[in-house]
Amino acid sequence: MDSGRRKFIQKAGLGSAAGLIGTSGKLHLNKNPELYKNKAIGQALTEPILSIPELKEPVWIASIELLRRKDNFICRVRSKGGVEGISVSNNMQMVYLYPIFLHRIQPFFIQKDARDLESLLEEVYVYKSNYKLQSLALWVPLATLEFAILDLLGKLTDKSIAMLIGKIHNPKIAVYQANNFRGKSAEESINLIEAQVGETGAKALKFKVGGRMSNDKDFPPGRTEKLIPLIRERFGANMAIYADSNGSYSVKEAIRIGEILQEYKFDFFEEPVPFDWYEETLEVNKSLKIPIAGGEQEPSIHNFKWLIEKDALDIIQPDIFYFGGMIRSMRVSKMAAIKGKDCTPHISGSGLGYLYMLHFVSAIPNAGPFHEFKGLNQEIPFECATSDLSIINGMVSVPTGAGLGVTLDPDFVKAHKKVKG
Amino acid sequence: MDSGRRKFIQKAGLGSAAGLIGTSGKLHLNKNPELYKNKAIGQALTEPILSIPELKEPVWIASIELLRRKDNFICRVRSKGGVEGISVSNNMQMVYLYPIFLHRIQPFFIQKDARDLESLLEEVYVYKSNYKLQSLALWVPLATLEFAILDLLGKLTDKSIAMLIGKIHNPKIAVYQANNFRGKSAEESINLIEAQVGETGAKALKFKVGGRMSNDKDFPPGRTEKLIPLIRERFGANMAIYADSNGSYSVKEAIRIGEILQEYKFDFFEEPVPFDWYEETLEVNKSLKIPIAGGEQEPSIHNFKWLIEKDALDIIQPDIFYFGGMIRSMRVSKMAAIKGKDCTPHISGSGLGYLYMLHFVSAIPNAGPFHEFKGLNQEIPFECATSDLSIINGMVSVPTGAGLGVTLDPDFVKAHKKVKG
Repeated sequence: MDSGRRKFIQKAGLGSAAGLIGTSGKLHLNKNPELYKNKAIGQALTEPILSIPELKEPVWIASIELLRRKDNFICRVRSKGGVEGISVSNNMQMVYLYPIFLHRIQPFFIQKDARDLESLLEEVYVYKSNYKLQSLALWVPLATLEFAILDLLGKLTDKSIAMLIGKIHNPKIAVYQANNFRGKSAEESINLIEAQVGETGAKALKFKVGGRMSNDKDFPPGRTEKLIPLIRERFGANMAIYADSNGSYSVKEAIRIGEILQEYKFDFFEEPVPFDWYEETLEVNKSLKIPIAGGEQEPSIHNFKWLIEKDALDIIQPDIFYFGGMIRSMRVSKMAAIKGKDCTPHISGSGLGYLYMLHFVSAIPNAGPFHEFKGLNQEIPFECATSDLSIINGMVSVPTGAGLGVTLDPDFVKAHKKVKG
Repeated sequence: MDSGRRKFIQKAGLGSAAGLIGTSGKLHLNKNPELYKNKAIGQALTEPILSIPELKEPVWIASIELLRRKDNFICRVRSKGGVEGISVSNNMQMVYLYPIFLHRIQPFFIQKDARDLESLLEEVYVYKSNYKLQSLALWVPLATLEFAILDLLGKLTDKSIAMLIGKIHNPKIAVYQANNFRGKSAEESINLIEAQVGETGAKALKFKVGGRMSNDKDFPPGRTEKLIPLIRERFGANMAIYADSNGSYSVKEAIRIGEILQEYKFDFFEEPVPFDWYEETLEVNKSLKIPIAGGEQEPSIHNFKWLIEKDALDIIQPDIFYFGGMIRSMRVSKMAAIKGKDCTPHISGSGLGYLYMLHFVSAIPNAGPFHEFKGLNQEIPFECATSDLSIINGMVSVPTGAGLGVTLDPDFVKAHKKVKG
């Protein structure tokens, strides 16, 4: 990028100039905040997120490698100056998605200035018509790359990922213990849940109701209605308790189950109906007092806008991998904040997802009181100088070192091999 | 499947019994039509599509192979009885998606009864939490398999794919000539479009407006407004002319461009705003007289329901590959028919997509007057005994042989090798 354009961009106060046709004749696709009726929402969707004023010179991305050992995927980015950024992917998904990373994302970012990350994220959505893939199939590979680039930018600025994307609002984070004992009886489930919560001392927990996208069916039948009172009884009135149906219900059944949940003073009801039943989510929310949570499966920032503006959801739960990274998720969190809603990101128990989630949560002012914990991955050897990452009395300290703030065991990284198309 | 359950299913008149917990303890996930407020829509979403009363005995799927030669993908399904069904994939997408086919779809169908195809399509959506991938990343691999299974069922019943999924409403189909000359000036574009239309004698055409998901930007600037009057002038009042913006516009600009299109009596305006801007699509439609078309990028049957029921779209355009096959697309077409809307499926110019589209269109009563033609793939050698597939005066005959109604060159198939995970 020539210095003339860089100057113009800084003047415009955006990651890239809205509407500019570049000297290459290529369209620049940044959104115009004035396209949105609600000015604050327009701002949340378009304002700069990344804070890297320290970086006065381009950070050219010289190489991007996807490395694999068994089913573990690492992304390594190197700047022209030889600095490295590393991420660990959501391996449960990446094992099916690496060709998308290699062919539809990686080539676009090579030789780009990493400081333009925000506008690159907009442009890669249109590159090779990637928008046709809008789903975690596109977003998990993109998040994997974004996390490596953020690690690189963090190392260049001596800032943690959290500091790159926001202010530190939450240096320590309280967790809720998540579990999935569907298929087991209510009696068996309650004992397993209790044992698990005992391990972390979490002051909050989330359990599964319904059968998972099951059209009103329970698994086994009758489990949910038996388990709801059992859980409140076992953990007492002071425990924050969340229920997740994974889209199991029709509107009618969601309202019926929701009424039982609120009778026992549960704290939120997640995905009461299938995730893409937008109007029905709103309908369920209007009919219930218990807060409705959702967003884990939502791939569209525009549909998040709808879900937030219409008050279909009360608790907003983007998954930072499934939704394509920190910057996109931060825009969702900002929209939620405008409407006074908490953001409680979802995270799946794969790779180092939990660590990325900690950075994200520490940087948002509207974090919910408790955040998802599904266990820390023991298969990935790393050192963290600024936090032991153990959960004490249900709390964990967010790493504060540069980038992700952890160092992967170099031998572990070396054992990975470059993935080829 | 034991004969007792089979009997019960036939009695229930559904592909599988709604709500039944099978002897395996597995949940059966078929939807209940009574969950839907509009009874006719509920029917369209749940009633049987496949017509295979001839098949009294199970058709066990013994093997499923994904074969590849360069970037061409073939799916071959063999029944336990040794009958084969074959499909050619949407190769432009499959080249990135084969791990999803191999790991998240193929294993589910092995040893299943192919006659249960409809309920298997519902269940595979939840298998391995595939719903998290809802997008063409899931649907193109699934459509590829569905087309091979339909080819197999067609060979067993001596029915064409069209006859398996409906009645033959359109043995001949009129095409519209599609093109993409974005980036070229209006003057250059009009000459290229005219030359192309001349080759097929099509009585309808579709051209591109806007810049493709470009936030109101044209490419090159000014092209669209210059091209609109030029096209009407060049082709005259009797030509059906469609305009496709590929989600280029904000609401305001879509309405402005739409007003110019209707001034020149264009016949539909496709994807005026980004595909996931549902409320905005509705808003644009309410503000314009020109019919609004869309659906190519829509991966959710529930969102199609919304777009149709709310009259956000007038012309409904599922892509039978991107949307996961004939059966799912047929449900969309049925919903459209209930609301008196035409269905004009999108098809991309890859593999034999055009042939699959012909079968689908021939089987729907609410087919639009003209259907997408982007050229017939010349790289795939096959014979068709019942149609020469050439376009004469803008019309093409749909093959009537068993299954897809074409025979791929056996040497071509043999040159493909099995894809491994």
